[in-house]
Amino acid sequence: MINKKGSRYVKVDPWRIIEENFDKSNMRILESLFTVSNGYIGTRGYFDELYTGDTHIGTYVAGVFEEVYEKPSYKGVPNRTQFVVNNANWLYTRIIADGEELDLNHSNFSEYKRVLDLKRGILTREFIWHTKKGSSFKLKFERFISMTKSNVCCHKMEITSLDKSGKIKIITGVDFSHKHRIYDTNYWEGLFKSNENDYISIGCKTIKTNKISIANFKIEVSKACAQGIVEGEKKIAKEMVFDIEENENIEIKKVVVINSFDRLNENLQSENGKLCQYIFGQYSYSILKQEHERFWERMWEEVDIEIGQDSENQQGIRFCIFQMLQAYSGMQDVVTGIGAKGLSGEVYNGNSFWDSEVYCLPFYLFTNIDAAKKLLEFRYFTLPQAQQRAKELDLKGAFYPIATIDGTESCTLWQHANLQLQVSTAVAYGLYHYYIVTKDEKFLFEKGTEILIEVCRMLESRCQLGQKDGKYGFFGVMGPDEFHMMVNNDFYTNYMAKKTFEFTIEVLKLLKAKDEKLYNEITRKTKLERNEVERWADIAKNMNIIQDPQSKVFEQHEGYFNLPHIELSTIPEDQIPIYKNWAYDRIFRYDMIKQPAVLLCMLLYSSDFTFEEKKANYDYYDLRCIHESSLSPSIHSILACELGYYDKAYEYFKYATRLDLDNYNRNTDEGLHITSLAAAWLNIVYGFGGMRSDTVPIKLAPIIPENWSYYSFRIKYNGAVLKIVVDPQNVTIKKLKGADVELMVYDKTYTITEDEIKIPLQQRR
Amino acid sequence: MINKKGSRYVKVDPWRIIEENFDKSNMRILESLFTVSNGYIGTRGYFDELYTGDTHIGTYVAGVFEEVYEKPSYKGVPNRTQFVVNNANWLYTRIIADGEELDLNHSNFSEYKRVLDLKRGILTREFIWHTKKGSSFKLKFERFISMTKSNVCCHKMEITSLDKSGKIKIITGVDFSHKHRIYDTNYWEGLFKSNENDYISIGCKTIKTNKISIANFKIEVSKACAQGIVEGEKKIAKEMVFDIEENENIEIKKVVVINSFDRLNENLQSENGKLCQYIFGQYSYSILKQEHERFWERMWEEVDIEIGQDSENQQGIRFCIFQMLQAYSGMQDVVTGIGAKGLSGEVYNGNSFWDSEVYCLPFYLFTNIDAAKKLLEFRYFTLPQAQQRAKELDLKGAFYPIATIDGTESCTLWQHANLQLQVSTAVAYGLYHYYIVTKDEKFLFEKGTEILIEVCRMLESRCQLGQKDGKYGFFGVMGPDEFHMMVNNDFYTNYMAKKTFEFTIEVLKLLKAKDEKLYNEITRKTKLERNEVERWADIAKNMNIIQDPQSKVFEQHEGYFNLPHIELSTIPEDQIPIYKNWAYDRIFRYDMIKQPAVLLCMLLYSSDFTFEEKKANYDYYDLRCIHESSLSPSIHSILACELGYYDKAYEYFKYATRLDLDNYNRNTDEGLHITSLAAAWLNIVYGFGGMRSDTVPIKLAPIIPENWSYYSFRIKYNGAVLKIVVDPQNVTIKKLKGADVELMVYDKTYTITEDEIKIPLQQRR
Repeated sequence: MINKKGSRYVKVDPWRIIEENFDKSNMRILESLFTVSNGYIGTRGYFDELYTGDTHIGTYVAGVFEEVYEKPSYKGVPNRTQFVVNNANWLYTRIIADGEELDLNHSNFSEYKRVLDLKRGILTREFIWHTKKGSSFKLKFERFISMTKSNVCCHKMEITSLDKSGKIKIITGVDFSHKHRIYDTNYWEGLFKSNENDYISIGCKTIKTNKISIANFKIEVSKACAQGIVEGEKKIAKEMVFDIEENENIEIKKVVVINSFDRLNENLQSENGKLCQYIFGQYSYSILKQEHERFWERMWEEVDIEIGQDSENQQGIRFCIFQMLQAYSGMQDVVTGIGAKGLSGEVYNGNSFWDSEVYCLPFYLFTNIDAAKKLLEFRYFTLPQAQQRAKELDLKGAFYPIATIDGTESCTLWQHANLQLQVSTAVAYGLYHYYIVTKDEKFLFEKGTEILIEVCRMLESRCQLGQKDGKYGFFGVMGPDEFHMMVNNDFYTNYMAKKTFEFTIEVLKLLKAKDEKLYNEITRKTKLERNEVERWADIAKNMNIIQDPQSKVFEQHEGYFNLPHIELSTIPEDQIPIYKNWAYDRIFRYDMIKQPAVLLCMLLYSSDFTFEEKKANYDYYDLRCIHESSLSPSIHSILACELGYYDKAYEYFKYATRLDLDNYNRNTDEGLHITSLAAAWLNIVYGFGGMRSDTVPIKLAPIIPENWSYYSFRIKYNGAVLKIVVDPQNVTIKKLKGADVELMVYDKTYTITEDEIKIPLQQRR
Repeated sequence: MINKKGSRYVKVDPWRIIEENFDKSNMRILESLFTVSNGYIGTRGYFDELYTGDTHIGTYVAGVFEEVYEKPSYKGVPNRTQFVVNNANWLYTRIIADGEELDLNHSNFSEYKRVLDLKRGILTREFIWHTKKGSSFKLKFERFISMTKSNVCCHKMEITSLDKSGKIKIITGVDFSHKHRIYDTNYWEGLFKSNENDYISIGCKTIKTNKISIANFKIEVSKACAQGIVEGEKKIAKEMVFDIEENENIEIKKVVVINSFDRLNENLQSENGKLCQYIFGQYSYSILKQEHERFWERMWEEVDIEIGQDSENQQGIRFCIFQMLQAYSGMQDVVTGIGAKGLSGEVYNGNSFWDSEVYCLPFYLFTNIDAAKKLLEFRYFTLPQAQQRAKELDLKGAFYPIATIDGTESCTLWQHANLQLQVSTAVAYGLYHYYIVTKDEKFLFEKGTEILIEVCRMLESRCQLGQKDGKYGFFGVMGPDEFHMMVNNDFYTNYMAKKTFEFTIEVLKLLKAKDEKLYNEITRKTKLERNEVERWADIAKNMNIIQDPQSKVFEQHEGYFNLPHIELSTIPEDQIPIYKNWAYDRIFRYDMIKQPAVLLCMLLYSSDFTFEEKKANYDYYDLRCIHESSLSPSIHSILACELGYYDKAYEYFKYATRLDLDNYNRNTDEGLHITSLAAAWLNIVYGFGGMRSDTVPIKLAPIIPENWSYYSFRIKYNGAVLKIVVDPQNVTIKKLKGADVELMVYDKTYTITEDEIKIPLQQRR
């Protein structure tokens, strides 16, 4: 089992993340936790004002990336990494009073409190500053990034003089001069600054990729003051000097509009001007805040999870949902993927991985269908890049990159970039899953079909016949278990490919039957030939799936059963995580697996496998899985729920909702584990809720952890919003919105309406 | 079969490499061919004087290296590459007459001829220079690097005015300012220059590694002249202006002493001074040349191979032998390995690989035992580095680096650096082989034993038990066939490890019996325990060697027989070499092998395998080997000779002796394929000569290619020099020097004396 130690940084509260004691050494962890984002712009919870202690000032804009090159390697091996570059610090602020500059690294302060309000999506921070000369000011900062306007960030400061009158200087604006931390380099070149409108602008461009970001801001102050402009090479700010009376409260509201452009063009400034006019002309800080708060209010009605008598998990799961909805919203005009860390840090370079479809997509499918669709649209728009990548790999069709920002491969490690086929099959699985949950045939046909055809082509060209067994399979691959590589007939890879072929054939049939014109258009466009589809059927039928006939255990890959065994319990604690403590190659020569592969298939295509098969494989692989991916334990927990291993299920769940809140993996300082936050949601809905969504209608089979008095979750399904409440006696289901839908609960079909249905909770196996 | 196209750059001649027409576009190829070296200093055949065309001015000194770093990777994966750095150009010369500077890229010239005299080890070049103003000078350059004094290079120029009297200016000296080509960087910092003695000196140091090279030269001129010194930042030369009469011949002789030091110290200049005094005080150019020529004369008496009626192979094999003897001589005080390209270029960075023991060592064992011993001593002296490397890989004992200059791992590709165990087992094999051929127990016991113990320890700690088959083997390795990686129970790796364990146990027994004191000393020093040795015996006994019982074919690795088959003949010619034309990962998923592995074992341990096994495995693997290593065809040729496949044997031999001379691999411009030159020698001696040296006494079983009237080769064995002449009727053997020795010919034992033994040539199978 897993044994992780967490730390408590914030107060437990059902709807808020509260920091009451500022501890410098935890700065970066809390910056990650206090990230605000709308999926387009993301900003870590760093301090607004000067802070000379350890801090990671990071704001990231989806799709605005730079790149670095390594020395060229072998053919087909990428040598270029793209990364979402540290962008404008729109919170840039300096506060000076009594000849002292406020800096919590040196200044005296009291009554410090920082609160992220999950219900309203607003981060505030307040404290009393005691200057060395004896003045006291109460300061309150507020920030949010609009969930209704992709390019809008809002920043507010309130200052109250507690004991005497005097002068206070506030400088606030926008600063592009921060370094991208990982490469310790600033990648911006100044383009222009302007102060001619009723707002202030600064435009910069990235050095290699020529991406442009223009940050514009407008300030409202509650009291007249002396004003000026402060400029740096890549910085512009307004300087305000206030005469402040005792107990007077001064308010500074700043609306920032960040517009990004893919390349330099002559109309840049006029386009930026239009976008600014639209916001600054019509929206005040207060209106933007109202809209934002209404968004969150409505959103929580449709997505909230309640957990009775478990306040830690209650806070944890709401934090997960909040951060997931913040990390990717589907509203922005730019089509991007979702970064492994959202927009909360620089590790993984803001790149998307296969987690998008396998872990994040299910969450969005049942909470924010626009976001789900956007994720798949990203794959559609980047199909040309995937086709190009297939060519680089001497393959046909489309090979989706293991890590990407703009659809090209951004991973320079060949063992991942070249050997992992799982993004391509995950995209196909995502289309399948999207279709089941939404019934959106239009999207499936118009955008999905082409992807499916191209992925099948890639799989066909990569697939080979075993010389001895005469079956089809994939040779020299790495599956999702990254502790084995260059293996043959990997179960996950073979199985997912088989399902991809089968689903594609089904979609083609359905499309032909329902819209022959579109079918003809697509087959013409893709030059699809009949015998291609016949070959796919043949490959799917003769795919090598290795199963031990006695034990029913699927061999993870050809030869896996002969790999040397290691008792995971014998690995000393100081060698964990082993991917950091063992020599790289040593990881690959045991039956130890990093994360589930066979078991993951048994969740994704649950109905394909018998209970006995699931049990046999769980019993076998559970002993061999060291869970060195934060995506791993939830899958085991979900399977354990199904198999009646309730203690194990809870044990694996234990760290899920608070993985980042309690920093179990010791690297929350680098950013949030966005895809793992999704896994926490899966763990409740698919695990305890027993949801399976690989067949129509979807199924529920709830159980309840012993220490919970009840829990509830809400899902969007086929246009309806359903609320499911589970207590130790009953499962209560009703529809909150939309049309009636069918649902299976414990293998019996129900029609869900506004009227509550009460079904007795299934007894423990 | 292999189909390579060669080009002819030089005239065919039994003892000389002759270039008669200078073609600028072949400059670098000929620079490689005309390399002169003594194993310590190596200099490409670049022009002495200014040449503004494409040229690679490169001089390399063994052990004098620089390093570059890549970004840190995983644990145990090196990120530092060392390379033998481009050193002092000791031929630096400028010639000016009639206001024109000689430069064959622009100047007019005729009667050009460059000759490498293999018999004497001297490179000359001559031509007539027609200045634009109408003068004609005959110029003749001569160079050699002393085979008797490791630090001495000799350079001579003769100038004859053909038609009028006038002035000619010659500048000649030493220049450290050339760039290391591969990294396009000069790595030298000037330390000092001096002109105070009767010789001129310049000292430089490398930037990162602080290696010091001091080049000193002394000039003798045949006629008085005006003299001066020309200096640059990293250059010093003598300027001489001669008044030359019509038909007068001027001679300039330059002796250069290059001394290198591992690190800066106060006594550097005085140590250098002593070494210079020794040479300059006692040795003139002429004496040095006499010594050098005598060396080659004696050497050829002991190592020459004659081939009757095949002048191309005659020239080819002598070129191979000459370059091999030049590349590594065993005389230098510095203990270094042999670079894959000797000292003739920068590709492979001057690093040593496993070829040292498997390909080069047999050549030196039978031609220059000092060099052979030095190769193994290099491994003894770098044992601490190999022990350190084992630790980095979480292993015990010693893990020899796949690529190295100073004994540390210099390969940054983990798949090679971490997965290839074959250097360690090659070192053990080298000790075994050395012992069989030399009977040098002293060396074996005093230096070999420790290496063997440490290699066995590494192998034991790397070895694992198969969970299903219950046998020992190596998991996650790459064998010598680099078209398969991360494989389990690789035949070559398992077999070589088994033999290493067995030989080590044998040596320990022998040592204990013969010198118990030393035995106790070594076991104490290495802390050897009795049960360690018992475990090695057990592992060797239960090593997993997978053989198909019906076909007798050894499976190259577990699962190899199920790999998809590819008919090599179906690969289009424009895809060859596939390692350059295929996506990197694609290479690894077929039954196609890059170079022999199973078959190589059958040569190294010939007597372990039956004729039937050899035939079955040859027939099987020959169809699957694409020979994308220049080391590959000779091994197949040698086996084909044994199996009676004479046509195949010759077909594979066809390119061996002239691989570089005719530039079959299209990359001779980068330097010579030193280890492949060794393979050419193996091809004749082990192939046609049928020598096998894995048992005592060694065996011969000669055959003769159809188009050869006779061939002869000479070997040193157990202290004797033997000459073997093979003609279509007989094998004639006699001893040229040393004590009588036993030899098996066609499985019958003979004692070889001064008296010729004539044995009828075995009939073709």
